[in-house]
Amino acid sequence: MTTLSKRDRLIEAAKVMFYQQGVTSSTLADIAQQAQVPLGNVYYHFRTKDSLVEAVLNTHVQELQAVFASWNCSPDPRQRLLSLLASSRDQENILARYGCPHGSLCQELDKENSPLVAIASHIFQVYLDWAETQFHQLGLDEQEAKDCAFDLISSLQGAFLLTNSFRSPTMLERKLQRLEAWIHAL
Amino acid sequence: MTTLSKRDRLIEAAKVMFYQQGVTSSTLADIAQQAQVPLGNVYYHFRTKDSLVEAVLNTHVQELQAVFASWNCSPDPRQRLLSLLASSRDQENILARYGCPHGSLCQELDKENSPLVAIASHIFQVYLDWAETQFHQLGLDEQEAKDCAFDLISSLQGAFLLTNSFRSPTMLERKLQRLEAWIHAL
Repeated sequence: MTTLSKRDRLIEAAKVMFYQQGVTSSTLADIAQQAQVPLGNVYYHFRTKDSLVEAVLNTHVQELQAVFASWNCSPDPRQRLLSLLASSRDQENILARYGCPHGSLCQELDKENSPLVAIASHIFQVYLDWAETQFHQLGLDEQEAKDCAFDLISSLQGAFLLTNSFRSPTMLERKLQRLEAWIHAL
Repeated sequence: MTTLSKRDRLIEAAKVMFYQQGVTSSTLADIAQQAQVPLGNVYYHFRTKDSLVEAVLNTHVQELQAVFASWNCSPDPRQRLLSLLASSRDQENILARYGCPHGSLCQELDKENSPLVAIASHIFQVYLDWAETQFHQLGLDEQEAKDCAFDLISSLQGAFLLTNSFRSPTMLERKLQRLEAWIHAL
């Protein structure tokens, strides 16, 4: 952690705290302490909490794009879609405890009437665009690929929410198996 | 509103504020002001904010059960399921602005490690049990009815979240039409 710049340490600490306890409940002072950065220095990097939230959102987008890029090395779009489900399976326990780091962050910010809402929605746009491309490459026409992308991403988000609410990784596992069967049958 | 007791006015005001700005951002003082109840009186009815949150959750459960009971007057389980989609359609604009009052409340509370999480999940249990009953009455076997109930409720929750994030009622409308087609085809 000490190899990261103070700015990156703040973003990383904020990302974890926003995920585990929510944006509103995470103070700049708590984040600074977690990042081992003096509170006075925080304002040098992020003049407002919103600018830190924006940096966390942009980090999520970049990390998501990097993950999708790594899966795009596979020549088979079906296999890439299955990679998304496999990665959810790898995270079942933490998803059941804290929900989706992207979905829960968007949900919280969506209550606000600020430019952050549009920035947050960029995360979902990255998911939808990537999934649409895979379905299209599987041979579905434009509208079908768009609909299937929405079905997949919204199904996962809904499943993460219910799984989190019931603290039930097995609930998510059942849904992932059914989504896998659907993708194999396409 | 003045015909409601102070306790009910507090619950109603809290319900709206939790929905529109989230639980963490809603102070007891703001809720008291909104309910036109002196702050000193709040503590007589709700000694802690958690006890007010619990009352709001129980109110959501009761209201949801009342809505489902009203739909159960229809003899056709398919029609009852379509009523759930129709009611979402009636709320498209507000769902696109604030998300689902149940889903967003659960999402926010799920970050916590308190007894409220289990009480919140009761809302989803009411949805799942009701939907499972309808699918079962449509002739699906026990496991299929359970899976379809999870598919329907999680699909709606995911769609509400994306719709809210993109502030797009038309995104929800498209999904509702596809869910209607699925239910007609069962």
